[in-house]
Amino acid sequence: MCESASEFERASAVTPRGDGVYDAAIAPGWDIAGNANGGYLMAVAARAMGDAVGRPPLSLTAHFLSPGKVGPIEIDTEVVRAGRRMAVVRATVRSESGPVMSLLGTFADQPDGASSGPNLVDGAPPDLPSIDECVSAGPPAAAGPSGFGDRMFSSYHPDDVGFRTGEPSGTALMRGWCRFADDAPIDAYGLLVVVDAFAPVCFNRPEFPVSWAPTLELTVHIRERPAPGPLRVAFSSRFIQDGMFEEDGEVWDSRGVLVAQSRQLALIPKPMPA
Amino acid sequence: MCESASEFERASAVTPRGDGVYDAAIAPGWDIAGNANGGYLMAVAARAMGDAVGRPPLSLTAHFLSPGKVGPIEIDTEVVRAGRRMAVVRATVRSESGPVMSLLGTFADQPDGASSGPNLVDGAPPDLPSIDECVSAGPPAAAGPSGFGDRMFSSYHPDDVGFRTGEPSGTALMRGWCRFADDAPIDAYGLLVVVDAFAPVCFNRPEFPVSWAPTLELTVHIRERPAPGPLRVAFSSRFIQDGMFEEDGEVWDSRGVLVAQSRQLALIPKPMPA
Repeated sequence: MCESASEFERASAVTPRGDGVYDAAIAPGWDIAGNANGGYLMAVAARAMGDAVGRPPLSLTAHFLSPGKVGPIEIDTEVVRAGRRMAVVRATVRSESGPVMSLLGTFADQPDGASSGPNLVDGAPPDLPSIDECVSAGPPAAAGPSGFGDRMFSSYHPDDVGFRTGEPSGTALMRGWCRFADDAPIDAYGLLVVVDAFAPVCFNRPEFPVSWAPTLELTVHIRERPAPGPLRVAFSSRFIQDGMFEEDGEVWDSRGVLVAQSRQLALIPKPMPA
Repeated sequence: MCESASEFERASAVTPRGDGVYDAAIAPGWDIAGNANGGYLMAVAARAMGDAVGRPPLSLTAHFLSPGKVGPIEIDTEVVRAGRRMAVVRATVRSESGPVMSLLGTFADQPDGASSGPNLVDGAPPDLPSIDECVSAGPPAAAGPSGFGDRMFSSYHPDDVGFRTGEPSGTALMRGWCRFADDAPIDAYGLLVVVDAFAPVCFNRPEFPVSWAPTLELTVHIRERPAPGPLRVAFSSRFIQDGMFEEDGEVWDSRGVLVAQSRQLALIPKPMPA
């Protein structure tokens, strides 16, 4: 790790122990109410998986087993198949108290936008006020103290931030800008954090409390290497049913190119125990 | 396997060998141009994973390693964590010629629609003519002989079937009805087949040939147990870029309830080698 490494690079660094096992740590300050942000934890695991196959994630799925707490973790990687272009890798993250996350992904060098073949895009970045007119906000205070919001800056569309003051918008939608606090460039690993950086979209429906919405599974497709500059994101849900909801995310770069798509399946937020 | 088992149940049966290893076979007649349908192969693997944890899939991801050919396969399952409600399992499918598919999933008893909590649905089944007015169609003849279309009946919306006769609709959309040929009930395992039963949506864009579009990864969320009767499906893509596309699927039952959501990342179809 060179001295010029960004805070995210330092907090997500992994050290190979041999035989596909990596040592790492859940760094302080990447938590929400004491639990590591899920996207951050996925990024640490992906560093180990990417090191094992010499390329970054293209499609990565994580299943969440237990909340990640600050401290040492071990990442067991296993290369299922490494081809010329694509490699499939699986991994399990373990802490002293047991398994934390299990992952499976296809890793490949990122498209750079120079490929042949037609680009047929039916979508656009969310229409946002300037980053200064958006509302810079970490997780809601009701969720407890958080360090994550000091490391990944999330600036919400003013129409989507009412949940913080007891006035949910009524629509399961969160839009805004996203960047690292130290303005470090965002690559495939950083995108894994971005897709989990905003509050659960359920918070903007009045039916739900602002409390923990446990993610069961999160899948991210890295669609292109982002150009420099803050990213625009939009998260939404169309099917809140049977106590679960899916949350779809889109991440757009400064060129207006879709650079990542995500979907997670999560449990609806329940009132915190008194 | 009882005598009254459906053709799908017989074709997806697995036999435990012990230590989490299962013997199974890719049955003849579930192929498209000689390669096993990806959803069918996922269902066979999921049978083993489900047996290992005593419950069906809730969220399941498969990464495709090589085409599945008719013949014996071995499924190595590993229970990562089994809790009271949820269990996380991973598996690898191997044939005599090497690894075919790698999977990771959360398994849990299906929601039955009786849960408490609000249901907030922003969506509806596709508007379809009656199943008799839709166009019953297997894969396009250009893809070569296929048995799959004789086992899973896909009836396309008349507006979406032009790709079979060289007249693609111009929209990356496929809608229709889906049922097993023998009208067997469709459960969580059957839904895994349904989400991969229609032709790739790229076929309805004139830019692409009607040929193989290799799936890299497919994730399915089983959202509820389907009510009896044929299912309505809609598949679409919004981001065909850099030689890849995502395909989003929705499956609706006869009550008009969303029972599954799927997303895959695939390579755009390339002309077949001469």
